[in-house]
Amino acid sequence: MIIIMKHNAKAEEIAGAISNVESLGFKAHVSSGEERTIIGVIGDERPVEPEHWESLQGVERAVRILHPFKLASLDFHPSGSVVKVDGVSVGAKQVIVMAGPCSVESREQLMETAAAVKEAGAHVLRGGAFKPRTSPYAFQGLEEEGLALLSEASRKTGLPVVTEVMEPDKVEVVAEHADVLQIGARNVQNFSLLKRVAECGKPVLLKRGMSTSIQEWLLSAEYVLAGGNPNVILCERGIRTFETATRYTLDLNAIPVVKQLSHLPVFVDPSHGTGHWEYVAAMARAGLAAGADGLIIEVHNKPEEALSDGPQSLKPDRFAALMRELRPLAEVLGRSL
Amino acid sequence: MIIIMKHNAKAEEIAGAISNVESLGFKAHVSSGEERTIIGVIGDERPVEPEHWESLQGVERAVRILHPFKLASLDFHPSGSVVKVDGVSVGAKQVIVMAGPCSVESREQLMETAAAVKEAGAHVLRGGAFKPRTSPYAFQGLEEEGLALLSEASRKTGLPVVTEVMEPDKVEVVAEHADVLQIGARNVQNFSLLKRVAECGKPVLLKRGMSTSIQEWLLSAEYVLAGGNPNVILCERGIRTFETATRYTLDLNAIPVVKQLSHLPVFVDPSHGTGHWEYVAAMARAGLAAGADGLIIEVHNKPEEALSDGPQSLKPDRFAALMRELRPLAEVLGRSL
Amino acid sequence: MIIIMKHNAKAEEIAGAISNVESLGFKAHVSSGEERTIIGVIGDERPVEPEHWESLQGVERAVRILHPFKLASLDFHPSGSVVKVDGVSVGAKQVIVMAGPCSVESREQLMETAAAVKEAGAHVLRGGAFKPRTSPYAFQGLEEEGLALLSEASRKTGLPVVTEVMEPDKVEVVAEHADVLQIGARNVQNFSLLKRVAECGKPVLLKRGMSTSIQEWLLSAEYVLAGGNPNVILCERGIRTFETATRYTLDLNAIPVVKQLSHLPVFVDPSHGTGHWEYVAAMARAGLAAGADGLIIEVHNKPEEALSDGPQSLKPDRFAALMRELRPLAEVLGRSL
Amino acid sequence: MIIIMKHNAKAEEIAGAISNVESLGFKAHVSSGEERTIIGVIGDERPVEPEHWESLQGVERAVRILHPFKLASLDFHPSGSVVKVDGVSVGAKQVIVMAGPCSVESREQLMETAAAVKEAGAHVLRGGAFKPRTSPYAFQGLEEEGLALLSEASRKTGLPVVTEVMEPDKVEVVAEHADVLQIGARNVQNFSLLKRVAECGKPVLLKRGMSTSIQEWLLSAEYVLAGGNPNVILCERGIRTFETATRYTLDLNAIPVVKQLSHLPVFVDPSHGTGHWEYVAAMARAGLAAGADGLIIEVHNKPEEALSDGPQSLKPDRFAALMRELRPLAEVLGRSL
Repeated sequence: MIIIMKHNAKAEEIAGAISNVESLGFKAHVSSGEERTIIGVIGDERPVEPEHWESLQGVERAVRILHPFKLASLDFHPSGSVVKVDGVSVGAKQVIVMAGPCSVESREQLMETAAAVKEAGAHVLRGGAFKPRTSPYAFQGLEEEGLALLSEASRKTGLPVVTEVMEPDKVEVVAEHADVLQIGARNVQNFSLLKRVAECGKPVLLKRGMSTSIQEWLLSAEYVLAGGNPNVILCERGIRTFETATRYTLDLNAIPVVKQLSHLPVFVDPSHGTGHWEYVAAMARAGLAAGADGLIIEVHNKPEEALSDGPQSLKPDRFAALMRELRPLAEVLGRSL
Repeated sequence: MIIIMKHNAKAEEIAGAISNVESLGFKAHVSSGEERTIIGVIGDERPVEPEHWESLQGVERAVRILHPFKLASLDFHPSGSVVKVDGVSVGAKQVIVMAGPCSVESREQLMETAAAVKEAGAHVLRGGAFKPRTSPYAFQGLEEEGLALLSEASRKTGLPVVTEVMEPDKVEVVAEHADVLQIGARNVQNFSLLKRVAECGKPVLLKRGMSTSIQEWLLSAEYVLAGGNPNVILCERGIRTFETATRYTLDLNAIPVVKQLSHLPVFVDPSHGTGHWEYVAAMARAGLAAGADGLIIEVHNKPEEALSDGPQSLKPDRFAALMRELRPLAEVLGRSL
Repeated sequence: MIIIMKHNAKAEEIAGAISNVESLGFKAHVSSGEERTIIGVIGDERPVEPEHWESLQGVERAVRILHPFKLASLDFHPSGSVVKVDGVSVGAKQVIVMAGPCSVESREQLMETAAAVKEAGAHVLRGGAFKPRTSPYAFQGLEEEGLALLSEASRKTGLPVVTEVMEPDKVEVVAEHADVLQIGARNVQNFSLLKRVAECGKPVLLKRGMSTSIQEWLLSAEYVLAGGNPNVILCERGIRTFETATRYTLDLNAIPVVKQLSHLPVFVDPSHGTGHWEYVAAMARAGLAAGADGLIIEVHNKPEEALSDGPQSLKPDRFAALMRELRPLAEVLGRSL
Repeated sequence: MIIIMKHNAKAEEIAGAISNVESLGFKAHVSSGEERTIIGVIGDERPVEPEHWESLQGVERAVRILHPFKLASLDFHPSGSVVKVDGVSVGAKQVIVMAGPCSVESREQLMETAAAVKEAGAHVLRGGAFKPRTSPYAFQGLEEEGLALLSEASRKTGLPVVTEVMEPDKVEVVAEHADVLQIGARNVQNFSLLKRVAECGKPVLLKRGMSTSIQEWLLSAEYVLAGGNPNVILCERGIRTFETATRYTLDLNAIPVVKQLSHLPVFVDPSHGTGHWEYVAAMARAGLAAGADGLIIEVHNKPEEALSDGPQSLKPDRFAALMRELRPLAEVLGRSL
């Protein structure tokens, strides 16, 4: 941490800041320039936030030197992590595709879609039983009934299942039916929930929030890792910007940035990221090319009857065509699919 | 709802969209222009989201005509709501000030600060017992012990208490100690939590999320209202933008916008909104001038020892000076303080 | 400047960075922590951008210590500047109001509106002769004819005139007719234009760009100041964010931030900032309360016939009512109007 | 255009809006719902902006049905345009790579870099002679001397040249030396400049502004097209968002969106878009996979000595390696390189 004193900081304010640094067990390294005095804080700065130092008298601002996350950092775990999901290795050479409907709506809808994505080569079945909906008047999911249908679809297809969990109390029941617990974008900083999925130990697909910086996202991952669960898969799903031509702005830059900072596998969700099925194939290809370890894609047997997110869902035949397109692309990128 | 067909939509796609509209009990009003056919959906469009129509074949996009919220809307409740908090009327002529520390850290800290804000004229005591922290390594709050201290401070000062609740399971215990349940910015779309505080019935201070549009924020309020709890107070606390000179961008435009859309009282939080105590007084004044019904301000007896958010906390003497400044301002604005 | 080396920077990379620092005439102050080596650059760092250092081998990033602007900085000019516009003092105790139509459209429109804003107490007449329009098919302004009308309105009302200049070659002709040259939001980083208005010497109203950080805005002001023209008035007019309820997000936080960084007077434009006349009065009041030195407000005698920006223009009677409201507000804030 | 009247609009306000619609030569198509009256405007709505209708009494808002651009639209030019640059076809099957230094700094620097990018397979040489710099104290480019060096490099390598023009008066001199005129991000809405490059007729590389919506960007292209110059190449170069891990957020979603709206070729600039050379290769690959017609990449023979943008420049050997990587990728995507 570097503490930058104000232009006109008084000698006693500088002394006060130094003694505060030392009182917390750090060494202070003082450098007096012509216009500003700066104080280097020597030691593991992570437990103390810049805000602490900024509240001292005469301090202009404090700047982190180290990244605030540790277990998620490539500095401490220099090779990529592989997360095992049933028989599937996430983060290894093979690109993993999770696919299925946004919401589980009926047995027929789920079984048809599950069979289709299996047939097309998906590795994991997705489907929401508990749905976070902006409006209280929108379909909120089949809940426990949806979980049971997911289990059934998993048995029939042999595909492991990823589904969202929205509150701490439901972690247990969701974990009984799911192979991967999804934390949705709106819950990326639901810290109570993060602590509970950490205890649970099952693989976690941690979506980036729509206004979560990459650093904050990795700190949310750190909650799960620090809680004893190393099985975290990150998933970029679009951030909120001024642009309205797409529902969100899928931020593929996050892929190489995360790869430089962290050992965790990272996925891309082109369906939520763009909100329009017409853009899904292009952004799925681009996600792979940017270095993603996998994709999560919405597929619906009848998008025009979907109870949520129909416009961003691919029909089974389009999904199958996309999978055929992605295979040679993965190979040229040194991966497989 | 207006459904806009694509430039090259086929006759059967247009017919399909019309029959879909009618099958859901709406009337379809078709208008064929030279370049586009548009279909007006006649009826209460709220339960069906634009996405439903956008997933139909040949549809370019669908545009809402009505606001998607109803109970929160000024259309259905044309005069401002007043929420009673203990003896305090929120949303009436008097501007209400909630003040206190970010986190409850110790008996001494809380009692000193509570006495000071009471003395300066605050109407409600704030203080966090459960703290949402970006880093798992940061202080997470005194939890139940903090709640007990808040109750004690309330008894001593006579001030009602507002404090944050972070998970559904804690609503009951927080409600035992608090007069207002705060939903923090990170939980504005934690729908499980919103449903639980709706059941609880106690007044709710609903902060806007850092990337929540005003429409989404009012839909989150709608969750509480539709759940049977009419006592919702909105609170603008800063949105996330590209500007880094302030911690967030306090969006005061939201005040007149909300006043035109909704009957709910709306507060401003200049402490979180700016992140620096130097800007709090200016933005508190501006918040009142924009038409806010109240302010929530962080005050700490010793900001430099705060375990969270020290740099944005006012010292008691600065808070008292601000209150003295705000009184004549409120009067010139036709309010009182 | 602080140079932060990478976790795994080699000894020769550190030596290379140090020798680069010294070769540019700075002193290097090295501090080796457990996890990172950091190098303090001692000397006036402003002429060298952080990017220079970040391109050296083994460097993770470089952090400025000093603000990159100098002439605009409060550090070098510790009291507020007053800019003289004809007889009007901008930046002094009196709050200054500039008002008039978005575009000059006809003699009748301009003379009627000018008389009305004069009558209501405005100090400066605004009106656009050259108009930056998003669409090539929209009205582009009366150009030279509009300038002549502005001169005429100025003579008739005795009000000085502010109008926009869009290209270097037009600075001379605009300066013949205008008392203040406005640089619009889209031209805040049109550096050729900034250099030319610097040479011209006339007062400049420098609008913030819709995605310009406060630091970049002050650097644009620095272009004018460094070119020999000290008469710069800043004007906040809304930034672009994800929120669509307002046309832009008027960022009033910029007012106290600028006041802490710079001596330049700063205005608020609630008309462009919100895009809706219904919000103008609230945000004008809030702008004053935040500490603005003045306001610039769109007024049109017949907004429904305006060729640009009708929805954000006040009618003359509403503008007069707003002026009556602002006077006691200014006084309570220690200003006059 | 759809005009949505307010909830409580009076009969005379509705009649007034209808008569306004008809007075401008449109037909009005009225539909009275239970909660709102809406008026469809039948005719070519493009010349009249939504703001016009929104300034009428009793109107809540107006919604475009048609895209506001015409010449840039795929509706009017259903197959992709090919722009000829010297012998190079931009927008055809072959992916085009423009490469070279950010700024022209010296003969040696430019000739070495130009030879290297030619050798690696680039098709067009880039290099800035006039440089838009945030700070007035930063290197502003070699100007005319830089143009002469670019011409020399072009003669030596046989590569056509793209370089930025920043003001209308310089269009002529830049066009003498350049094969493609670049309009930089900060000038995307410098309409005087757009009109001048339209007259010039030479191919234009039109960068997206850092806060320009895709619709606004296409309207800027429309300025050039409507001015008689059909040779427009679009270039996505990153937008401004809250994320600071990258310098901008390269918005690859813009590629499939533009491809659905327009016939113009579209490029990607991964160097400016990310600001860090470490991310350039990943985002170059992703740009191609998203469907870009070309890339523009910064290459510098000695990035650590660059006078601008060193950290985002590739060294010649890394650029050559990237080109080798991109070739099989282009093929798998059905393109060539």
